[in-house]
Amino acid sequence: MIIVLKQGANEVEIQEIKERLVQEGFKVHFSQGVERTIIGAVGDQSRLKELDLEALPWVEKVVPILAPYKLVSREFQPADTVIKIGEHEIGGAQIHVMAGPCSVESRSQILETAHAVREAGATFLRGGAFKPRTSPYAFQGLEEEGLKLLAEAREETGLAIITEVVDVRDVKLVASYADILQIGARNMQNFNLLKEVAKIDKPVLLKRGPSATLEEWMMAAEYILNGGNNQVMFCERGIRTFENYTRNTLDLSMVPALHALSHLPVIVDPSHGTGRWQLVAPMAKAAIAAGADGLIVEVHPQPDKALSDGKQSLTLPNFQEMMTELDRIARAIERPILKEGER
Amino acid sequence: MIIVLKQGANEVEIQEIKERLVQEGFKVHFSQGVERTIIGAVGDQSRLKELDLEALPWVEKVVPILAPYKLVSREFQPADTVIKIGEHEIGGAQIHVMAGPCSVESRSQILETAHAVREAGATFLRGGAFKPRTSPYAFQGLEEEGLKLLAEAREETGLAIITEVVDVRDVKLVASYADILQIGARNMQNFNLLKEVAKIDKPVLLKRGPSATLEEWMMAAEYILNGGNNQVMFCERGIRTFENYTRNTLDLSMVPALHALSHLPVIVDPSHGTGRWQLVAPMAKAAIAAGADGLIVEVHPQPDKALSDGKQSLTLPNFQEMMTELDRIARAIERPILKEGER
Amino acid sequence: MIIVLKQGANEVEIQEIKERLVQEGFKVHFSQGVERTIIGAVGDQSRLKELDLEALPWVEKVVPILAPYKLVSREFQPADTVIKIGEHEIGGAQIHVMAGPCSVESRSQILETAHAVREAGATFLRGGAFKPRTSPYAFQGLEEEGLKLLAEAREETGLAIITEVVDVRDVKLVASYADILQIGARNMQNFNLLKEVAKIDKPVLLKRGPSATLEEWMMAAEYILNGGNNQVMFCERGIRTFENYTRNTLDLSMVPALHALSHLPVIVDPSHGTGRWQLVAPMAKAAIAAGADGLIVEVHPQPDKALSDGKQSLTLPNFQEMMTELDRIARAIERPILKEGER
Amino acid sequence: MIIVLKQGANEVEIQEIKERLVQEGFKVHFSQGVERTIIGAVGDQSRLKELDLEALPWVEKVVPILAPYKLVSREFQPADTVIKIGEHEIGGAQIHVMAGPCSVESRSQILETAHAVREAGATFLRGGAFKPRTSPYAFQGLEEEGLKLLAEAREETGLAIITEVVDVRDVKLVASYADILQIGARNMQNFNLLKEVAKIDKPVLLKRGPSATLEEWMMAAEYILNGGNNQVMFCERGIRTFENYTRNTLDLSMVPALHALSHLPVIVDPSHGTGRWQLVAPMAKAAIAAGADGLIVEVHPQPDKALSDGKQSLTLPNFQEMMTELDRIARAIERPILKEGER
Repeated sequence: MIIVLKQGANEVEIQEIKERLVQEGFKVHFSQGVERTIIGAVGDQSRLKELDLEALPWVEKVVPILAPYKLVSREFQPADTVIKIGEHEIGGAQIHVMAGPCSVESRSQILETAHAVREAGATFLRGGAFKPRTSPYAFQGLEEEGLKLLAEAREETGLAIITEVVDVRDVKLVASYADILQIGARNMQNFNLLKEVAKIDKPVLLKRGPSATLEEWMMAAEYILNGGNNQVMFCERGIRTFENYTRNTLDLSMVPALHALSHLPVIVDPSHGTGRWQLVAPMAKAAIAAGADGLIVEVHPQPDKALSDGKQSLTLPNFQEMMTELDRIARAIERPILKEGER
Repeated sequence: MIIVLKQGANEVEIQEIKERLVQEGFKVHFSQGVERTIIGAVGDQSRLKELDLEALPWVEKVVPILAPYKLVSREFQPADTVIKIGEHEIGGAQIHVMAGPCSVESRSQILETAHAVREAGATFLRGGAFKPRTSPYAFQGLEEEGLKLLAEAREETGLAIITEVVDVRDVKLVASYADILQIGARNMQNFNLLKEVAKIDKPVLLKRGPSATLEEWMMAAEYILNGGNNQVMFCERGIRTFENYTRNTLDLSMVPALHALSHLPVIVDPSHGTGRWQLVAPMAKAAIAAGADGLIVEVHPQPDKALSDGKQSLTLPNFQEMMTELDRIARAIERPILKEGER
Repeated sequence: MIIVLKQGANEVEIQEIKERLVQEGFKVHFSQGVERTIIGAVGDQSRLKELDLEALPWVEKVVPILAPYKLVSREFQPADTVIKIGEHEIGGAQIHVMAGPCSVESRSQILETAHAVREAGATFLRGGAFKPRTSPYAFQGLEEEGLKLLAEAREETGLAIITEVVDVRDVKLVASYADILQIGARNMQNFNLLKEVAKIDKPVLLKRGPSATLEEWMMAAEYILNGGNNQVMFCERGIRTFENYTRNTLDLSMVPALHALSHLPVIVDPSHGTGRWQLVAPMAKAAIAAGADGLIVEVHPQPDKALSDGKQSLTLPNFQEMMTELDRIARAIERPILKEGER
Repeated sequence: MIIVLKQGANEVEIQEIKERLVQEGFKVHFSQGVERTIIGAVGDQSRLKELDLEALPWVEKVVPILAPYKLVSREFQPADTVIKIGEHEIGGAQIHVMAGPCSVESRSQILETAHAVREAGATFLRGGAFKPRTSPYAFQGLEEEGLKLLAEAREETGLAIITEVVDVRDVKLVASYADILQIGARNMQNFNLLKEVAKIDKPVLLKRGPSATLEEWMMAAEYILNGGNNQVMFCERGIRTFENYTRNTLDLSMVPALHALSHLPVIVDPSHGTGRWQLVAPMAKAAIAAGADGLIVEVHPQPDKALSDGKQSLTLPNFQEMMTELDRIARAIERPILKEGER
């Protein structure tokens, strides 16, 4: 850590800060520039955070040298994490497409969707049973009934299931049905929820908060790894910006950035990332080209009758068409999506 | 609701949408402009949301006419809500200052702070017992032990207590100690937590999420009122922007905006709103001038030894000085903070 | 245009606004809902802007129905604009890559770069002669000397030239050397500069302002088309957000959005869009997959000795490698970049 | 400057960077931590920018120690700059209010406004003659005719004049009429315009760009001081954020921040800062309480007939009422606005 002192900091003040650092176990060395005194401190950086030296009146700024995350970093683990779910591997050569409705609404809706996306080449079925909604007056999900319908769809189609958990009290329940637990964007910093999913032996898809920096996002994943669960994948789903033609601004640069800084897989959600179904296929293709390990896409048999997010949902034929286009891009980078028979 | 159709929408398509609206109980009328067909729909707007008409390919956009919130709106309740806590009234003539450390760290720390802020004119003691922290390696709070220390400080000083609840499982516990329950910024859209505090007979301070719009914030309050608890106050604490000299951008325009749109009181947090103690007093004064009903401010006996947020905490003498300055502004608008003997 | 009145607007007030609209030539019709009166006004929307009806105390909001741009819209011109520059066509089947250093620094630097990017498959040479720099103490460009070096590089390599114009007084000078005039991000709303390039018979590349909405960007292009120059291409180069791992947030969703709303070509700048050379190739590939008509990329023979933007510049070998990868993606969507001999 | 190397940088690489720094005249010293090698470089920081060391593959990050601005900094000039304009002093004890319409529209409009704002206590008349407008179809200003009307209003009322210059070619013309030249938000980084106003012996009001950081804003002012004109005042007018209830987010924390970092006066524009006239008075009061040296406010005799910005303009009576309220706040901090006779 580098501590830059304000112009005019005197000997007494410099000595005082030195003593505190030494007392806390740091090795300290000074650099007296023409205009500033700079202190370098070598030691356990996680304890330096606690010191909160910027509260001192003669400290101008404190510059951390090391990143605050460890377990999620590629420095800690150079090799890619590959998450195994049944026969599937996320983070390996194959790109996975997770598809389905925003909310599970009925047996026929989820089964019809499941069969269609399976046929088009998806390997996971998505669908919300517990829905966090901006308005208290909007549809809040079928809850356990929805989970049961997802399980039935898995039984029928062989698709693995990804679904969101929003409440610490529901983690075990949801985990008993799902193959992947989804932490939604609004819960990225719901630290108690992160601690609960860390105790479960199921992979977790961690969505980026709408105003989360890359570092905060990685720290949220660090909570899960630190709690004992290493099967975490990131999911970029757009950030909130001033642009409101799109629902969010899908930040695809996070795909190569995360691959450089972390060993965990990266999934992209072009549905929430744009909020407009017309933009989903182009951005899905872009995500693949940028190196994403998978996609999660909203698909609905009748988007205009969806109880949520219809505006951003693909119809079944549109999804099928997109998959064909995606496969072409994916094959160009030697990560085919569709099998021989599906093309 | 106004539905604008795309150029070239034909009779069949227009008829289809009309039928759906009529079927759902809306009165419909058309306006055929030169370039666009517009449909006006009068009826229960909350059901229109569910229709998600923008999913229809020939709908260009849907423009809601009414705001989505009801109970929090000034249209619904023209008179200001005044929240009574013991002898105090929040939202009335008097401005309240809530002060204390970010985290309760020890008995001596909280008691020393409580006595000092009481003397300087504060009416509420703040202090966190459950701390949501970006890093899993940072101090996470004293939990119930912290709540007990807060209660002891109340006993000693007569200050009322405000403290944060972060977990649905802790709501009753925290409510058994606190006079006001605080919902933190990261939990503004933790809807299950909102539903739980809605069931409790204690006032709630609802912080604005760092990327929450005014409307989303009001909808979060609507959850609490709709769940049966009318004692809600908003707390502006800054939003996330590109500017990073400050920790957040304190959006004081929300004070008069909320007072125009809602009947609920508005508190301002200049500590998180700026992240730098040097900016706290100027922004506290600005908040009062803008019409805030109260302030919540971080104060610590030794900010450089604080376990969290030292950089933005005032020392006890700085807090006292600020209170004197605040009172001058407050008297100018006839909402004095200090009593005769305290000036 | 739809005018929503506040609750409680009375007959006199409604009549007054009606008269003003009729007087201004609008056809007016009313819709009396349960909670709001709504006025629809059909007529010349560009004059409605001037009316500024939201200044009236009993108007709650004014909702425009039509977009404010005309000439740039796909409604106005359904067919794609294809811009011809010598043998090249921008906006047609072929994807163009414009490459070169941020600044023209010396004869050897620009010639070495030109030959190398030409060989790798670029069709345009970029390079700044007039540099807008955040600091008055930074290198400000070689000015006309730089333009001459660009012209020499064109002579030697056959590459067409794109370079930025920053001052209304230099438009003719720059146009006498360049094949495409670039309007930089900071000048997107320098309306007098837009009016000047509108008078010139040279194509214009219009970069998006770092905080410009899609609509504002299209309105800036409208200035150029309205001034008489139809040869405009958009260039997405990232917007400013809270995320600061990247220099800007590259908003690739603008590629399909612009292709839907406008007939003009769309170029992407992954160098400014990310600010890190390691992210340039992945985002370039993503841009192609999203449907971009071209790329503009910073390349420098020795990025660590560049006088500007070295951090985001590719070396010559890195550029060549990227071009091979790009071509693979481009062929998958049947828009090859490289010719037979170049692969 | 501190240069942090990547993990694993070897001796040869470290030696190479050392040689370059020494060659450029820096004193270099090393710090070998457990996980990182850090290089401190003491010397002329303005040249370090040019080195662009982050382009080197084994450099992780470069941390500047000194701010990039000099002349505008309080370190360079500890005493406040006070700008004298006739009998007025900006940056001294008195707070100045600049008021008037967005655009000069007609002789009667500007004269009526001038008399009214003069009477209410304003000391400067604002009004645009050259209007940068988002749409090419909107009113673009009366140009020199507008400047003449402003001069006439000064003649009649004694108010000093502030008006915007948008084109390098108009600087001398505008300066021949105006008492303060305004650089608009969109031109904050129009560096050639900054260089031109730097040559003029008239004070300059420099508005913050809608997406400009504090540092970039100070660097823009540095251009003007570096060019020879020391009479610069900052004007906070709101930044662009995701919140769109307000036109911009007025960032009042910049007032104390600028007063800490710079010696130049700070003005606040609550009209553009909010975009809603109902919010102007509360935010004007807040600005005064935060320590602003002046305000610039839009006032129009008939806002609903204004050719621009009517929605955010105060009527003449509203302005008068605001001035009385402002004076109360200003007196509480001993910076009265109104003279004895005006109260």
